[in-house]
Amino acid sequence: MSGLLARFRTMWAELAPIGLRPDGGYDRFAWSDADLEMRAWFRRTAAGRDLPVEQDRNGNLWAWWGHDPAQGPPPRGALAAGSHLDSVPRGGAYDGPLGVVAAFLAIDELRATGDAPGKPVAVVDFTEEEGARFGVACLGSRLSVGALDPVRARGLVDANGTTLAQALRGAGVDSGKLGEDRARLARLEAFVELHVEQGRYLAGADVPVGVGTGIWPHGRWRLRFDGEADHAGTARLEDRKDPMLPFSAMVAAARESAARHGGLATVGRATVRPNATNAVAASVEAWLDARAPCEPSLEEILGDVRVRAAAAAAHHGVACSVTEESRTGAVRFDASLRARVTDALGSAVPGMQTGAGHDAGALAAEVPTAMIFVRNPSGVSHSPEEHASDEDCVEGVRALSRVLEELLWR
Amino acid sequence: MSGLLARFRTMWAELAPIGLRPDGGYDRFAWSDADLEMRAWFRRTAAGRDLPVEQDRNGNLWAWWGHDPAQGPPPRGALAAGSHLDSVPRGGAYDGPLGVVAAFLAIDELRATGDAPGKPVAVVDFTEEEGARFGVACLGSRLSVGALDPVRARGLVDANGTTLAQALRGAGVDSGKLGEDRARLARLEAFVELHVEQGRYLAGADVPVGVGTGIWPHGRWRLRFDGEADHAGTARLEDRKDPMLPFSAMVAAARESAARHGGLATVGRATVRPNATNAVAASVEAWLDARAPCEPSLEEILGDVRVRAAAAAAHHGVACSVTEESRTGAVRFDASLRARVTDALGSAVPGMQTGAGHDAGALAAEVPTAMIFVRNPSGVSHSPEEHASDEDCVEGVRALSRVLEELLWR
Repeated sequence: MSGLLARFRTMWAELAPIGLRPDGGYDRFAWSDADLEMRAWFRRTAAGRDLPVEQDRNGNLWAWWGHDPAQGPPPRGALAAGSHLDSVPRGGAYDGPLGVVAAFLAIDELRATGDAPGKPVAVVDFTEEEGARFGVACLGSRLSVGALDPVRARGLVDANGTTLAQALRGAGVDSGKLGEDRARLARLEAFVELHVEQGRYLAGADVPVGVGTGIWPHGRWRLRFDGEADHAGTARLEDRKDPMLPFSAMVAAARESAARHGGLATVGRATVRPNATNAVAASVEAWLDARAPCEPSLEEILGDVRVRAAAAAAHHGVACSVTEESRTGAVRFDASLRARVTDALGSAVPGMQTGAGHDAGALAAEVPTAMIFVRNPSGVSHSPEEHASDEDCVEGVRALSRVLEELLWR
Repeated sequence: MSGLLARFRTMWAELAPIGLRPDGGYDRFAWSDADLEMRAWFRRTAAGRDLPVEQDRNGNLWAWWGHDPAQGPPPRGALAAGSHLDSVPRGGAYDGPLGVVAAFLAIDELRATGDAPGKPVAVVDFTEEEGARFGVACLGSRLSVGALDPVRARGLVDANGTTLAQALRGAGVDSGKLGEDRARLARLEAFVELHVEQGRYLAGADVPVGVGTGIWPHGRWRLRFDGEADHAGTARLEDRKDPMLPFSAMVAAARESAARHGGLATVGRATVRPNATNAVAASVEAWLDARAPCEPSLEEILGDVRVRAAAAAAHHGVACSVTEESRTGAVRFDASLRARVTDALGSAVPGMQTGAGHDAGALAAEVPTAMIFVRNPSGVSHSPEEHASDEDCVEGVRALSRVLEELLWR
């Protein structure tokens, strides 16, 4: 067994128990106990390598090789690699943590050469990438690039009614400092995110690693259907204002429209009130996740959903509102950085678009970014079935290491 | 203002704060703090009238006029009136408590005549009529008639994972004694339940009070759709096993079939797992409440729902299972008792069927039962909008009192 494979397995085993649910899968929601344990692991792992750690104004963690943050900001031209440590509910082990682990191991590889880094390199853990707790994906990176208003961010509420401001206070973080951090990002020459693939492109191409070329435009919309609670055994069908009916029509419409426009539409979250077996629901709140290869297709899908939801709601005497919670335009990763990544990895490593949002996508507005994907044979993600072989993960570490080497010394 | 109207208002005001939610409506779930407060009110109200109270093996409360339960069971031919004190989530004030309040006030009216009762009369509060906490409606009355297996009952679980056995233990009740109580019921000559109407029949007929003739056959079915969690941004539509899609198809099918067969079908409760915006759901669990004027129509509706749910599930690669949680056959209230009720109230009081289940329906298997309904102008129930005027409530008390008078002394 190679030393790198053994070191990967050791590091992976350290993370294995954190936030593990009894029924499998991980709950590692931002600023929860599990997330704080992940952060403590990040600090320990950095300390074991003498990499000083700083937490930025948005709660993102940076472990520096070749720079001491206590002495001020890094010089211009610094590099960064990483991903996130939070998860969706009952998420997989790889989505996020693999990119952070790979960044630590890639730096180990580079240091083993004995050469001085020339420019600083950071391992980064971005906060609340999944949006699983406060509903806004890429929270830490969006705040940093100024794409999310800090006043709105502080007021975001989790399922228990806790605001982000309260959660930060509980973790000893000053929420008053949340906000854009472009001065920091301007110091970066590149950010490289390694991530488990969330589809089956690489499995089909029979290669362990691919390079991201861009991210589909995508967003999240909250649909609220307000009807009227009533008795399931006595209210006549024609007198009802049952929000479950237009909600169901919307689910079907979203799927149909996404298929027609070559995009993706998912309703994976819904809250029914009062949620009683023998009462017509008073309201259904649902979240639509929609993505498409281009903006016009995304607009078509959204338009279809809005029209069909409104029509079904009107037919049933139900009020319907649609709120855009977040939206990200199409991302094309930086072309000159991509050319250097291809130089480092060779042209046999395929390029690929993805429908998934990533911190690399949010950061692309301010920093040249690149992504490296690692094969996931099942293609399943956001689920305990998400998987990559240890050998493929190590191939990913080697690729990331070669890319950083190219950026550092060539 | 009549003395009875004033006494009704006083009693109603005592109940007004118990279990009231900040956003209106009542949460009075069986064996919750609010329910225990309702039970304490029942005991105080009985004590204030020197009516001794006993709690039967299934947790139902009995306050006796003309009988001391400490001396043993009542003689055969006893009468009982009452309803339940629990509520659906964010329920109305009237569904249940009106029948218990009316029974106390009707006994007050009868006692005011100065005549001895001749046979004992009980005010009864049946436990967990709504099934809002443990999922089985008419829990207390079904256990008493032997329609619900006590082993199954003890294992029923609420939304927090608490079993009925644990909840009973917490309230100091021995769950080992749960079970059929036919010997007790055999002592009853009649049970009369007064209830707020949950539709608009009486409002349309412009009369304050009606007499129940029967209850539609009805039941609850749990439908489970098991798919596969996946990433909303990367899993191809054709690779997904999204349980939200057959769930939605089932909601539409249930409504359509109920309309075609003159019945009612409601999906007012659904649980989505993991319920994350950016993940295809792993599973959707939903509850169908279905009712119809006769058994064959109810069977048609169920058959339609099963077939359509299974077909949609198969189309999407999702597993589908349907479990019958409870089912109640058509109830025709006792004909000779109904004749006596009509004698007492006069033929101008209309007879009416209802789609709603009631303890009177569950008890009808063992005891002659009758129901009196009080007008609800909006027809809305299981909602804070549920309402009956104080004057109509008092008309209900007068009707109940006349019926008990007829049964006691004529």
